[in-house]
Amino acid sequence: MKKRPTTITIVGAGLVGSLLSIYLAKRGYKVSVYERRFDMRKSFLGGGRSINLALSNRGIRALEEVGLAAEMKRHSVPMRGRLMHDLQGKLTYQPYGTSGQFINSISRSGLNMFLMDEAEKQGVNFFFEHRCIEVNLEKTEITFEYQHDTRHHQSDLIIGADGAYSAIRAALQITDRFEYSQHFIEHGYKELRIPPGDNGEFRLEKEALHIWPRESFMLIALPNPDATFTVTLFFPFEGPQSFQQLNTDEEVMAFFRKTFPDATEQMPSLLEDFRDNPTSSLVTIRCTPWVKNSTLLIGDAAHGIVPFYGQGMNAGFEDCAVLNQLLDKHQDDWSKAAPEYQQLRKADADAIAQLALDNFVEMRDLVADPDFLLRKKIEARLHELYPTRWIPLYSMVTFHEEIRYSEALEMGRRQKVIMDKVMETPHIAERWESLNFAEIVGQLKPLR
Amino acid sequence: MKKRPTTITIVGAGLVGSLLSIYLAKRGYKVSVYERRFDMRKSFLGGGRSINLALSNRGIRALEEVGLAAEMKRHSVPMRGRLMHDLQGKLTYQPYGTSGQFINSISRSGLNMFLMDEAEKQGVNFFFEHRCIEVNLEKTEITFEYQHDTRHHQSDLIIGADGAYSAIRAALQITDRFEYSQHFIEHGYKELRIPPGDNGEFRLEKEALHIWPRESFMLIALPNPDATFTVTLFFPFEGPQSFQQLNTDEEVMAFFRKTFPDATEQMPSLLEDFRDNPTSSLVTIRCTPWVKNSTLLIGDAAHGIVPFYGQGMNAGFEDCAVLNQLLDKHQDDWSKAAPEYQQLRKADADAIAQLALDNFVEMRDLVADPDFLLRKKIEARLHELYPTRWIPLYSMVTFHEEIRYSEALEMGRRQKVIMDKVMETPHIAERWESLNFAEIVGQLKPLR
Repeated sequence: MKKRPTTITIVGAGLVGSLLSIYLAKRGYKVSVYERRFDMRKSFLGGGRSINLALSNRGIRALEEVGLAAEMKRHSVPMRGRLMHDLQGKLTYQPYGTSGQFINSISRSGLNMFLMDEAEKQGVNFFFEHRCIEVNLEKTEITFEYQHDTRHHQSDLIIGADGAYSAIRAALQITDRFEYSQHFIEHGYKELRIPPGDNGEFRLEKEALHIWPRESFMLIALPNPDATFTVTLFFPFEGPQSFQQLNTDEEVMAFFRKTFPDATEQMPSLLEDFRDNPTSSLVTIRCTPWVKNSTLLIGDAAHGIVPFYGQGMNAGFEDCAVLNQLLDKHQDDWSKAAPEYQQLRKADADAIAQLALDNFVEMRDLVADPDFLLRKKIEARLHELYPTRWIPLYSMVTFHEEIRYSEALEMGRRQKVIMDKVMETPHIAERWESLNFAEIVGQLKPLR
Repeated sequence: MKKRPTTITIVGAGLVGSLLSIYLAKRGYKVSVYERRFDMRKSFLGGGRSINLALSNRGIRALEEVGLAAEMKRHSVPMRGRLMHDLQGKLTYQPYGTSGQFINSISRSGLNMFLMDEAEKQGVNFFFEHRCIEVNLEKTEITFEYQHDTRHHQSDLIIGADGAYSAIRAALQITDRFEYSQHFIEHGYKELRIPPGDNGEFRLEKEALHIWPRESFMLIALPNPDATFTVTLFFPFEGPQSFQQLNTDEEVMAFFRKTFPDATEQMPSLLEDFRDNPTSSLVTIRCTPWVKNSTLLIGDAAHGIVPFYGQGMNAGFEDCAVLNQLLDKHQDDWSKAAPEYQQLRKADADAIAQLALDNFVEMRDLVADPDFLLRKKIEARLHELYPTRWIPLYSMVTFHEEIRYSEALEMGRRQKVIMDKVMETPHIAERWESLNFAEIVGQLKPLR
């Protein structure tokens, strides 16, 4: 790693690449961002298909650092809890945190375009339709394909922010002793849509993340500022209940009517959406090292995770903020900042990757389980009584950006051991309010 | 997968690619083998550096099937057991199996050249210095680079036998839902050499695999027919005792004299070998599926494993034999044989990958442990008394080709549970011969 790079090439103009370019331009680097796709601000392929994301504290903190949080929060819809829909359409609500704590549904493309605009204001140069076809790690040089032509671009530092299918990582993968794994879960996903009501109103409760948990799969819906909901079906690719079995309009309708009756009523374009939208896969990418020669990985390129904790973007944004803090600490000496960035963030990326996989089971299966809901209620009470000593796992991950993911994972494990025992208390459902909460919280050893 | 291919392209003219080409040519297919390297029969780069391998029952069985086993056994040296060297040069011998059971040290390049010659006799066409640069899975077409030119080659079926760093697998890796991991252990290896004695004799006991177990690392030596030994140091890349610490001739000599005194005396070219030979890494490759469109993976390309069970080549040869049996069974309908091949062999490849990793710990650490040697002795007695009911794990893997790797792994686990308890018997070292062996073997539930 070069000690003091002047020119930096970021590959990938997605959320993380764009935010990182702002951070680095503000530090005085000459930053170029190369993107394989078209400039979405000019020709947004796929039109109105707005995919939303859950922006929470870690992401907000990283946006605040460059003065962009307030603007983004204006374009988001707060989601204060999970609203579970059972087979009969009966609703159960579970708040995400204490009052005043919420996550934010935001448009991916809206946020992405805003960040690109801001980056350009800071002097960042964007190059679109440039596909990375070769990386020379020794010379810090990338060969791009642009309009059937090849172009070489050399700089002092390459940063791969090019997502789960990163071309920069692919170049690292074939170097000696590069640890790498890509793991797909058995479920794919398909996006659907609930339009606004006749009077422009939200057709479902607005400030919630809706879940239709069905044990081995689920449907979710996130609100958008335009009163639509983006609905996502997470469903096995193969098997007795799977995408493979839904081939005709009749099969799709029969399945939805039976499985998600109340949601189906609100989706007039269900059949078209189901037919037109792709079935996409869900991957977890783990690798190390993230830093080699003068090349560094960040965001999904370093740690692709499944979406079930709503932390993919937040983790990537936190990468940017941490790297920035380390550049402060080491006065822009990258030979010190980069290894420390990797060492800190690799542990946290591994933790959130695991938490995200675990949370799928929780969302699709456990949230429909009365024991699980009771457990959450007891933990909420513990948190109320001992707000700093017992912070539920979801809150640590989502609302406590001062707690590292790896610390949250470890504390969550300790809490689980204690709660497993608490849940064995006879008649716990009736007697939980008279538990000795002081004694319970006393069992939890702090990390530091 | 095409039902009845006529033309088959094998990528990789290594051991597995060459043997497979013989199998397939004998079945009547038109087989072309493309190899990235030079034809080693014409210009053997690296000269006298003969790397040897342990050929055992599974590999021999696969060679027998095409009538080539007898010839190969003539060019090998039997190894009947492990001969352990401690720090004082004291020797401990542990036979591999019963008398008449042994593994065979054989020259990799010798075997490889022999298989290529045999393949050509069967009408297989070899193309050397052809580097695969692109694979079109839909069209079953490969683009090769040959002498600065590109050549396209289309056939009905592509088989990737191109090793742990397979180009064919790299093409599969970027297809959707391809499971993949590459994992390196912390140790690298370096090859050294013990020459013949002054009168052309073997300088160490000939018919054994020599081990200098040193807990966190080890040195081994395998005999060659020319009375040399190929010596391999398996040693961490980094850390307090590691390749990183051995930078000068003085450091190398001091380390070897202190750690492997009796071996050092027998290696007059130690310093040159240490300097000239590369330090190589050790990878485990796991992936699935092995079959996609009309492309299939075999050998290390499908399942690269570490060398500590001496099963890499044997597993690859067994792949060939199993595929051949399935083509018999399905009358050359590849659309049936290929999926069944994958289903059978994936489970076995995963098992031998794990066994190979476990065996490193056994070789470098446990074989110096008196408790471990006693355990082996008790198991040998059980095997002697109940030859079909209790077969030690090493024997199942090495000498019992009728037992699948996956079955051996599972039986080994069951044996371990039983033996762990046996080893807790008070005064076991003195009393082991009076154990109730019938009762012990009765605890072992058979798999089928």
